[in-house]
Amino acid sequence: MNLAKSHSKIFFLGPKGTFTDRAQIDFCEYFGIPDVEKIPVCSISKGFDALLNNKDSLIVLPIENSIEGIVRETLDNLIALENYDYKILAEHIIPIEQNLIGFTQSSDEIKTIISHPQAIAQCRHFLNANFPDAEIKYSNSTANAVCSLNQDDVSTVAIGSEFCANMYNVPIIMKNINDEKNNLTRFVLIGNQYIKKQIPSKTAITFTTSNTPGALNSILSIFERYNINMTQIESRPSKKSLGNYTFFIEIDGHYQDDLIVKALFEVIQHTQMFKHLGSYFIV
Amino acid sequence: MNLAKSHSKIFFLGPKGTFTDRAQIDFCEYFGIPDVEKIPVCSISKGFDALLNNKDSLIVLPIENSIEGIVRETLDNLIALENYDYKILAEHIIPIEQNLIGFTQSSDEIKTIISHPQAIAQCRHFLNANFPDAEIKYSNSTANAVCSLNQDDVSTVAIGSEFCANMYNVPIIMKNINDEKNNLTRFVLIGNQYIKKQIPSKTAITFTTSNTPGALNSILSIFERYNINMTQIESRPSKKSLGNYTFFIEIDGHYQDDLIVKALFEVIQHTQMFKHLGSYFIV
Repeated sequence: MNLAKSHSKIFFLGPKGTFTDRAQIDFCEYFGIPDVEKIPVCSISKGFDALLNNKDSLIVLPIENSIEGIVRETLDNLIALENYDYKILAEHIIPIEQNLIGFTQSSDEIKTIISHPQAIAQCRHFLNANFPDAEIKYSNSTANAVCSLNQDDVSTVAIGSEFCANMYNVPIIMKNINDEKNNLTRFVLIGNQYIKKQIPSKTAITFTTSNTPGALNSILSIFERYNINMTQIESRPSKKSLGNYTFFIEIDGHYQDDLIVKALFEVIQHTQMFKHLGSYFIV
Repeated sequence: MNLAKSHSKIFFLGPKGTFTDRAQIDFCEYFGIPDVEKIPVCSISKGFDALLNNKDSLIVLPIENSIEGIVRETLDNLIALENYDYKILAEHIIPIEQNLIGFTQSSDEIKTIISHPQAIAQCRHFLNANFPDAEIKYSNSTANAVCSLNQDDVSTVAIGSEFCANMYNVPIIMKNINDEKNNLTRFVLIGNQYIKKQIPSKTAITFTTSNTPGALNSILSIFERYNINMTQIESRPSKKSLGNYTFFIEIDGHYQDDLIVKALFEVIQHTQMFKHLGSYFIV
């Protein structure tokens, strides 16, 4: 399948070797764009800046993990986007397997464990049970953690993917150490392209309501009345005060479906801010 | 005001000098327990372990920030708690002011900025605008970041509170650098004590529903029918697969109010798992 517009660049949350890097490879293969310029960005926010500053570029970012939940920085940036041409174009799900990676021969030698806070969180019970006294250090990415290891200090190990261990040529000490074995991350491709409707699709919206009892409920009732399945609801602070929220909702269906158009039109009547973030399918 | 039971210890998310340390001081003063043994814990999960292993102890933890949202590790541990005697007893709100802290005389010298990921996130726009090229390093707490600074390396600075800068005797370079000036964190006191009902109170519940259209809506409708104001709704992954959620809701009212009892009894009929996490007031 091809994208409608030509595309200048594809950005992804780097460095090379992250799960997002893996997702961008899969997206590029699916959309037949293997030769596009691929540029890692060092934070999600900087990725959005790069996207807006590069005409017709694309970006691949994580949006949800089955254990940790929504990736807030991606969601907050999507909500704040003032250029309405940019939409979620497609999503892709990758199983996340974390591994203990390092140069030591014996786990008794391990004193320090380094990784991204989300990877640490995914292995929390494993770490408490097996390395209760190890010092936990945070890195900016699992790839940076693995890349920072060296053979002169075998007491420091990292948590990261097999993809990454292979890329940086560091041995895997223990495989699959994440607490929940059904650990999936959902990635999205974002851009200002038009993509032809696929079935099945999901639609994402974000909105604020008046701060009164039943305001959210009046919106959920609309979806119930149209028998539209809601697959995700998330509240984000409006950042003005405690207790004021912006909602993010995903529903089954496409914005070109009659039913969805009618329901969303009703939803708009009950909201203060409303934004359509895209209608997309699983790659 | 005094607590009903005597209390062995009070735990808090450490180290000393964190905003949570400040919150525990305020809770202890309010409840007239200045002389209780105060023990910092190095993670929220370890704090819950300590609470369960120490008879009649208490713990102070952050539960929500006005910018970043719910503190997921606190919420996930509360949801997973199998000892139903432990409840949220009280809440306390502290304004969060982040500061750039370090030994340099000139901001041109700054090459590395170290802090807890949440503090970094709270200053994201400030950092992108003022220090786009600085290396960002994550620490386990703002207090650890400040504590790690030394006068021999003035190019590394930290982000943290004034309370903490004073405690470790490190100068403040720039005050109040957080992006949103209305930055508040809500802390909770958790324990197995009974606390007499206060007005006004809030009540927290957590539940799962069947995964069908309208399941959540049927519960929100109950609160609307009783005219009960919902102050917070948060979905957390059930950790089994993408798309399965546990909900956390806070409503105005106390579990000893007639209206709340009736509404919650109806809610229970529509849920699979249901747990009352406490009815509490602002200290």
